[in-house]
Amino acid sequence: MKPIVVIGTVAFDSVKTPFGNAPEVLGGSATFFAMAAGLFTKVKLVAIVGKDFPSRYIQVLEEREVDLEGLVRSNGDTFRWSGEYEDNMNVRHTLDTQLNVLEEFKAELPSSYRKAPYVFLANINPDLQLKVLKQLEKPKLICCDTMNLWIVNQRKDLEKVLKKVHMFIISEEEAQMLTQEHNIVKSAREILKLGSFSLIIKRGGYGAILFTQKKEIFAIPAFPLENVVDPTGAGDSFAGGFMGYLASQDRLGLGYVQKAMIHGNIVASFSVEGFSVDKLRSLTPIQIRSRLREFLRITHLSSPIA
Amino acid sequence: MKPIVVIGTVAFDSVKTPFGNAPEVLGGSATFFAMAAGLFTKVKLVAIVGKDFPSRYIQVLEEREVDLEGLVRSNGDTFRWSGEYEDNMNVRHTLDTQLNVLEEFKAELPSSYRKAPYVFLANINPDLQLKVLKQLEKPKLICCDTMNLWIVNQRKDLEKVLKKVHMFIISEEEAQMLTQEHNIVKSAREILKLGSFSLIIKRGGYGAILFTQKKEIFAIPAFPLENVVDPTGAGDSFAGGFMGYLASQDRLGLGYVQKAMIHGNIVASFSVEGFSVDKLRSLTPIQIRSRLREFLRITHLSSPIA
Repeated sequence: MKPIVVIGTVAFDSVKTPFGNAPEVLGGSATFFAMAAGLFTKVKLVAIVGKDFPSRYIQVLEEREVDLEGLVRSNGDTFRWSGEYEDNMNVRHTLDTQLNVLEEFKAELPSSYRKAPYVFLANINPDLQLKVLKQLEKPKLICCDTMNLWIVNQRKDLEKVLKKVHMFIISEEEAQMLTQEHNIVKSAREILKLGSFSLIIKRGGYGAILFTQKKEIFAIPAFPLENVVDPTGAGDSFAGGFMGYLASQDRLGLGYVQKAMIHGNIVASFSVEGFSVDKLRSLTPIQIRSRLREFLRITHLSSPIA
Repeated sequence: MKPIVVIGTVAFDSVKTPFGNAPEVLGGSATFFAMAAGLFTKVKLVAIVGKDFPSRYIQVLEEREVDLEGLVRSNGDTFRWSGEYEDNMNVRHTLDTQLNVLEEFKAELPSSYRKAPYVFLANINPDLQLKVLKQLEKPKLICCDTMNLWIVNQRKDLEKVLKKVHMFIISEEEAQMLTQEHNIVKSAREILKLGSFSLIIKRGGYGAILFTQKKEIFAIPAFPLENVVDPTGAGDSFAGGFMGYLASQDRLGLGYVQKAMIHGNIVASFSVEGFSVDKLRSLTPIQIRSRLREFLRITHLSSPIA
């Protein structure tokens, strides 16, 4: 079992879905990732919050035993994001983004973080992702996410990041935006040319698919859910379950990557059943194993094809 | 190996996709189904065409050894459909529909068809589907498809059909239209109340998912394709591969239904790689088995989760 360093956002989210409103709740890419990966291994968080960030939100991360040495507390206001989901939940509209303290963030790693073998560059300015990459001493697996804003406005920095990571984890819309290509196989092939990483494309309520430089593919459907309350953080929860499993096993072969994808899928399926990190907070290893067995039953043939 | 009776349309399709135009090509729900199911077993077709229907299109069906005793040749014009696909290929717009000879179709089964154990009610007026149901003498498995038009305009007839079938195979959009519900699990549960059938919801480029009355679920992703040329007929090709496999095995347990779904998925993946039935026409059992093995490799764990 190896530790994971994550850099990303810790935020106030204000979310509106067909099932209700959640104003100023705990959110951010690093938060969801840490709450998910923390189910499998030790997570060391690098992020910044403002003076308005309440101790009860700090406690949520502490309950999961997340190492907060790298969490900077600044005098400004915490980063805020607000968004709204359409009825089908696969379509999201960002209503407002207030960077606040993110604009002064230096992304400096405490010395105790620098030798961490597993690193997740969660969605944040690629400039900050690059700063983190320069401070790493012994990375074994670096995974990276991004978002539409950086693809459009900071593509060069993003491409610099991609030269140095082992795994790139993005949504299908982001893949299309990066390549102007709707076909997922063609899009993946174009993206793989940007570095030597493997690629996981997340398809929201439809699952996820892996493409490697060796042309390996692994595709899984989403776990069929009856109660999707809030998809916010699903991608970071997927990445957290994915990397958490890999770091807990400390193995990186294709078979482990496949199993890690299924773990990520299962953790994400819980995450979207509540607002904020509510479901991740109460999630137990027994619940994960139970839904994982159910997932295998409903996606794998019970007997081979004759 | 048991025969399948299919009732549906045989049509001239005019299709526009980002990859080109195909004017007045061979199409129709019964055509795609027969060309797909005919790869696995004997298909007996019930449909109507007009005096303008060329012998070269008849030959396509004859090459697959489809029984055409039930194909009525009328003096009117053949049914015509035209449609256009958006760039992402999951969104289709119908440009024109000309019923023509379909308006006089009686859907009478030749006596040699009536004892067929496997029956597919392909997309056609539910009134005609009901007429076929009344002529069956020994049905073992009746599967049924429909479309948005009948859901909106002939819902009562459609619901009568659903009381008498064993399997209902529709698209995700149709499921949402039937139930006004976006969540696929909730939507499926509502639809299952309309009869005692099992339900397969087709998700276009995202795969398919089975829901049974016993609350069994089986979900598969689509085969990742690089060259989707024309999705027309994908659903009927899926149904054809699905029922063709079941009729060839003459077994109906969940394990066989799972395998049939994968066969349907594979046959549909070939179908969309060309216009009209071009790819189905040249498809061989060896190609099917090869892609099927590839599909299992990219969707099934190579070793169990410890």
